[in-house]
Amino acid sequence: MNQPTLSHVDDDGRVVMVDVTGKELTHRVAEASCVVVTSHDVASLTANDGGLDPLAGAKLAGIHAAKNTSNLIPLCHPLAVHDVVVEFRHHERGVLVYSRVVSIERTGVEMEALAACSFAALSLVNALLLRDTPASFEDLVVLSKKGGASGEWGRSLTV
Amino acid sequence: MNQPTLSHVDDDGRVVMVDVTGKELTHRVAEASCVVVTSHDVASLTANDGGLDPLAGAKLAGIHAAKNTSNLIPLCHPLAVHDVVVEFRHHERGVLVYSRVVSIERTGVEMEALAACSFAALSLVNALLLRDTPASFEDLVVLSKKGGASGEWGRSLTV
Amino acid sequence: MNQPTLSHVDDDGRVVMVDVTGKELTHRVAEASCVVVTSHDVASLTANDGGLDPLAGAKLAGIHAAKNTSNLIPLCHPLAVHDVVVEFRHHERGVLVYSRVVSIERTGVEMEALAACSFAALSLVNALLLRDTPASFEDLVVLSKKGGASGEWGRSLTV
Amino acid sequence: MNQPTLSHVDDDGRVVMVDVTGKELTHRVAEASCVVVTSHDVASLTANDGGLDPLAGAKLAGIHAAKNTSNLIPLCHPLAVHDVVVEFRHHERGVLVYSRVVSIERTGVEMEALAACSFAALSLVNALLLRDTPASFEDLVVLSKKGGASGEWGRSLTV
Amino acid sequence: MNQPTLSHVDDDGRVVMVDVTGKELTHRVAEASCVVVTSHDVASLTANDGGLDPLAGAKLAGIHAAKNTSNLIPLCHPLAVHDVVVEFRHHERGVLVYSRVVSIERTGVEMEALAACSFAALSLVNALLLRDTPASFEDLVVLSKKGGASGEWGRSLTV
Amino acid sequence: MNQPTLSHVDDDGRVVMVDVTGKELTHRVAEASCVVVTSHDVASLTANDGGLDPLAGAKLAGIHAAKNTSNLIPLCHPLAVHDVVVEFRHHERGVLVYSRVVSIERTGVEMEALAACSFAALSLVNALLLRDTPASFEDLVVLSKKGGASGEWGRSLTV
Repeated sequence: MNQPTLSHVDDDGRVVMVDVTGKELTHRVAEASCVVVTSHDVASLTANDGGLDPLAGAKLAGIHAAKNTSNLIPLCHPLAVHDVVVEFRHHERGVLVYSRVVSIERTGVEMEALAACSFAALSLVNALLLRDTPASFEDLVVLSKKGGASGEWGRSLTV
Repeated sequence: MNQPTLSHVDDDGRVVMVDVTGKELTHRVAEASCVVVTSHDVASLTANDGGLDPLAGAKLAGIHAAKNTSNLIPLCHPLAVHDVVVEFRHHERGVLVYSRVVSIERTGVEMEALAACSFAALSLVNALLLRDTPASFEDLVVLSKKGGASGEWGRSLTV
Repeated sequence: MNQPTLSHVDDDGRVVMVDVTGKELTHRVAEASCVVVTSHDVASLTANDGGLDPLAGAKLAGIHAAKNTSNLIPLCHPLAVHDVVVEFRHHERGVLVYSRVVSIERTGVEMEALAACSFAALSLVNALLLRDTPASFEDLVVLSKKGGASGEWGRSLTV
Repeated sequence: MNQPTLSHVDDDGRVVMVDVTGKELTHRVAEASCVVVTSHDVASLTANDGGLDPLAGAKLAGIHAAKNTSNLIPLCHPLAVHDVVVEFRHHERGVLVYSRVVSIERTGVEMEALAACSFAALSLVNALLLRDTPASFEDLVVLSKKGGASGEWGRSLTV
Repeated sequence: MNQPTLSHVDDDGRVVMVDVTGKELTHRVAEASCVVVTSHDVASLTANDGGLDPLAGAKLAGIHAAKNTSNLIPLCHPLAVHDVVVEFRHHERGVLVYSRVVSIERTGVEMEALAACSFAALSLVNALLLRDTPASFEDLVVLSKKGGASGEWGRSLTV
Repeated sequence: MNQPTLSHVDDDGRVVMVDVTGKELTHRVAEASCVVVTSHDVASLTANDGGLDPLAGAKLAGIHAAKNTSNLIPLCHPLAVHDVVVEFRHHERGVLVYSRVVSIERTGVEMEALAACSFAALSLVNALLLRDTPASFEDLVVLSKKGGASGEWGRSLTV
């Protein structure tokens, strides 16, 4: 049976970093996604990626967050991020935000991918904040991870 | 009819900051929430707030994000944050994360409240990341805002 | 006669911050500009501002630098930046970068305007870095300042 | 003929990071310089490097900027900077600022050298800001680069 | 009797920020000091402040830390620091580091003064780190505070 | 005889970074400690580590500082920190703070260990700041270092 356990916690329930010194440098990839929920009209406006600055801004906010994850999540390690991809796609509930982070490191980059998605989404929400229909974001998940001792894992992205 | 418009964009679709010089300093409050989706067992483990470090860590990650919102969301203004509250409650799908940000400023603190929720949630997700059931977070919304020319706005928190 | 003096230095030549406690909160505006020198073809490519992401990215880099000036210039004060404008114009030597920073503060925002110009320009240079003709930037100046005890000052922008 | 192209842009003109995973770790060196334009008297005051704090401050501002380039230029990678040299020399128009950045990395350190020069120069400008003759800086260029697939490149420093 | 209590903790022992919205903006000053313990020879080398760069560097590290205290101490509020003074004096055990922070704020600047001292001292220690006699620092205390509802408080600096 | 010398200073007394390019990547460990001086009652309150949030907060402040040392100490190199341990123990004068930092790097992690101790201690002091008995911290020292050309070094921790 699946015993629930927490990472980053010792036997007494105290938070601890995980020492990654003994882990191998391997090629790491993680993908994540979330959905910015908004009205159809606004979604079309933003989802075409047709040179609209807010999408460029949201992309850069996501890249910046991925590079700064270890400053934002207390127990994450500083990582040499090699690539961050942030993309936007039309989604029936609004705008799908997709991220992929790549590195050669001793630990996974899932948190970096989640941070990239979150801040790209928050940056879009910032552009969409209207008084009567505040935008929100939903369904932030890790889509896949690759590299490291625990191997590959993935789920499909249902748009 | 509700014409979709974007804030922080000029008539040519270029991103711009909003000059807040002409706005009055008023008492601002914004609340936000999201849900960290996880199995019941893990939720009980974390939701009791009984001295478990990961919750303290997640709370501090949320406070840190609220204080740094202007560095994370490209067009947000640096604000003098006066208070950040982050709380965790049991939720049928896992753990509810609640945030409230308070300031006396020329612009609203909704983005600060959303950033606090997001990073408290991401920090919990980091503690919960298990290979077979990756935690996720959902339903990030602004619950209410108060202060400024546009007045109060709110929706109920359904747990 | 105009005796050259340094600000931020005491009588012994030691660096010091300037205590701004006694200064009044006044409306401050500063403008700056510089020129990214590049070939005509590349300049046309970038200067039309026609939805090209690199310009949005450079604009956001400039805004980010203006908000972070006190972390980058050792003796600058942390300021509540109210607005940062970054614009690009065609220039005979390449691309003119223009910035304007606005605040209500006890000290001027000239350094913030210079930082905004510099990092917007560096971000463009990053997009333009070609092996054979490395882009450069030139003529970074304060164009004007307004507010504070020393009053207004300006020079014309010659494009 | 030299077709102008932009780095960090895909075929649709969208900004993208460059994935450096496939590149080799090589010894990288880049040099840059710029000129802080100021009156002769002030230049003598600062250029002797004789224990005057503002020069130490400007040097440290340059080192700090080089270490933080990936936070300031949106598409730069976080790098393990191994050395940053910042030096000042007398120049006929004022003060010459020289920087050299060294690393063992998968990508070049030109942007780090440019950032070091820019912020050392801005920090000097901050010390020199006089109402009647605002200092400026000019001629920011990459002087040389070494390491990586594209090989060496250089131009002479004309003081 | 003096019941020991903790600030920033609620009745259940959970960390909380203190909401400063209701407090008045008053003129705040705090002083702190500590001693960098080192051999007499090294102390003379550094304590004369005679244009030696390490002292300028340590001073700037202290100013930088004071401006960033809210990012370093989890429950501190972001403050508009108006002045930071860092000075070095000869001390029988080595070098005395003194700091003073000034602001007009709703909360005290004691933590900012302690942070300034700590990082000026750590920066000196970094310059002094010798294998056989590692420098240390001692006796970090708040010397005085002024402003706010709790009034003035002070102790003498015994050198 | 032991000639006092400063690291990070050239022959003219100017600050310089140390180029670590030529040094080998080795396994680095450094330990540090300091004492937060406080009354016995408060010490018991905090030193049991029994789920009291302030200790979790102080631990995370220490970890954050270790990861950011190169931004706080001007001449430190950015390092890939692999593990940071922060622990609290009862001490006759109050609370002993212990830190250990681990990395595989070209340079030592002593400054990172000192920074972790300092900010964990400052964060505790922030929780303890009472008007009549301001807490302080004392005896910040490197306990041991391992790795690199200069070999091991240590002193005993006397509690």
